[in-house]
Amino acid sequence: MIEGPDIKKAFLRISSHLHHTPVYTSKYFDTKYGASFFFKCENFQKTGSFKARGALNSVWQLSSEEKQRGVATHSSGNHGQALAWAARQSLIKAYIIMPDNAPWVKVEAVRSYGAEVIFCESNLKAREEKLEEVSAKTGAVYIPPYNYYHTIEGQATAALELLHEVPPLDYLLTPVGGGGLLSGSALSTHYFSTLTKVIGCEPADADDAWQSFHQKKLVEQVAPRTIADGLRTSLGDITFGFIIQHVHDIWRASEDAIITSMKEVWERMKLVIEPSAALPLACIRENPSFFKGQRVGIILSGGNVDLGELPF
Amino acid sequence: MIEGPDIKKAFLRISSHLHHTPVYTSKYFDTKYGASFFFKCENFQKTGSFKARGALNSVWQLSSEEKQRGVATHSSGNHGQALAWAARQSLIKAYIIMPDNAPWVKVEAVRSYGAEVIFCESNLKAREEKLEEVSAKTGAVYIPPYNYYHTIEGQATAALELLHEVPPLDYLLTPVGGGGLLSGSALSTHYFSTLTKVIGCEPADADDAWQSFHQKKLVEQVAPRTIADGLRTSLGDITFGFIIQHVHDIWRASEDAIITSMKEVWERMKLVIEPSAALPLACIRENPSFFKGQRVGIILSGGNVDLGELPF
Repeated sequence: MIEGPDIKKAFLRISSHLHHTPVYTSKYFDTKYGASFFFKCENFQKTGSFKARGALNSVWQLSSEEKQRGVATHSSGNHGQALAWAARQSLIKAYIIMPDNAPWVKVEAVRSYGAEVIFCESNLKAREEKLEEVSAKTGAVYIPPYNYYHTIEGQATAALELLHEVPPLDYLLTPVGGGGLLSGSALSTHYFSTLTKVIGCEPADADDAWQSFHQKKLVEQVAPRTIADGLRTSLGDITFGFIIQHVHDIWRASEDAIITSMKEVWERMKLVIEPSAALPLACIRENPSFFKGQRVGIILSGGNVDLGELPF
Repeated sequence: MIEGPDIKKAFLRISSHLHHTPVYTSKYFDTKYGASFFFKCENFQKTGSFKARGALNSVWQLSSEEKQRGVATHSSGNHGQALAWAARQSLIKAYIIMPDNAPWVKVEAVRSYGAEVIFCESNLKAREEKLEEVSAKTGAVYIPPYNYYHTIEGQATAALELLHEVPPLDYLLTPVGGGGLLSGSALSTHYFSTLTKVIGCEPADADDAWQSFHQKKLVEQVAPRTIADGLRTSLGDITFGFIIQHVHDIWRASEDAIITSMKEVWERMKLVIEPSAALPLACIRENPSFFKGQRVGIILSGGNVDLGELPF
């Protein structure tokens, strides 16, 4: 279980080492959809995404014996960067297992924080095997990207900050991949803003969370085909549990809507966001009148894009 | 002449209708160049550039008889958008003459503010002729993009805000095209931060300001060849006068440095800036140790880029 005080404690533990990211508004999107949007800019967060929150909260709850052994994870990108950065804050060693097709900019970023990158094939089995191998050899402690209480508590602090800063929200929208950000956001609204409904936003071509939510059982993601590289993973049992309990709905968006919405944010808000961060606006784009007259929070989850591989 | 109180009055006149744009810092650039940088984010300004300041300050000093006739200008982009927007704030008509090779995104933006766009060939003579024709027909008042006291007073307010917000700056760097932003910034430092040295940053392949500054006479720009579409114009006699009097130096940067620096800001700061806005960092890139230990203000002048025409 994660209780309200756990989230507050996580906030106190990590916030002075992170950016208190700004909340932006946009006359353009407000006019377009007739709503009031509040964008929590986690693209400006340390390491370029909200993942720094969960990683730091996890690393700082390790024992000193565990810290001596270092930390390890597998990650297609943002969690890897975040853990590498969090490990450096604690002066401990980090081993990051990355798929060999990970965006170059993310691999470089992980290395720039002093972590060791170990490549493997781009499938869950290969990643897990490589992780076990590395942990066995080095003794490093595995810090999971989402299916882990300390990670979820950390991710919950983004919504906590947003809810404190803006007028009461009718809705809060976040992308959903493994479900760490969505679970954390749903827990924060559950404890601190009861009337706010949370909607998870997922690529239609990687819709395991939507399937799981509606079938009320954990459905694994097979062969995801989406540009939103942060959202190709499956939910875990812990995140699924929180999502079933506290999330209002899960919506899906097409690849076209994702790309167009991402471009719109770049052009209109002058913010570099990654495809995954565009999911909430992509879902709104496909339901343009749903939020009329409502106050809607949106977590712009990250801004790590390979500029050499833009879809437009 | 423009005195200190003129700039303060311009600030009081326009600031409540504009964004008080944030000042960002960047650990990445601080570490890279050993300096402390303060980035004034005019890419977040209304209409996507600092030009909204000068345009609004100019429009609001028209008589009501002039306002009835409307306003007109020729502009390759940002001033056109800014004047269209400023005119709409005053509910008056705007005629914007644009070269037929202007970036599409800028043409659309001008139209979205309700202004009438009139195309002409992409040279100064054609623009000026078309402007005279439109003014003769409609009676619209010409609002110049830079060589005009009210415009310069308005542009000066960006530096005014920056200087009030950060510790005393050793240097302040801005791009220079027609010289409105550079003149205004130099006047603001002259009156409000005497020890701050102002450096204008210009593309090497459109270096009329550098030529004019060093030859101490106004040299016209012929055949500029730079991706920084906001900086292809020549200085005017008024901006040249202020620049000679109050600017410390003018530096030049290669096209490569401009493109690389722009990309660096997108990747590292997650900010969409246009090529012109990258000029200060491009100049620093080519003089990487010059600012070691110094506090350096940089005006990120705008963020209007055609995402379909990126140079990377």
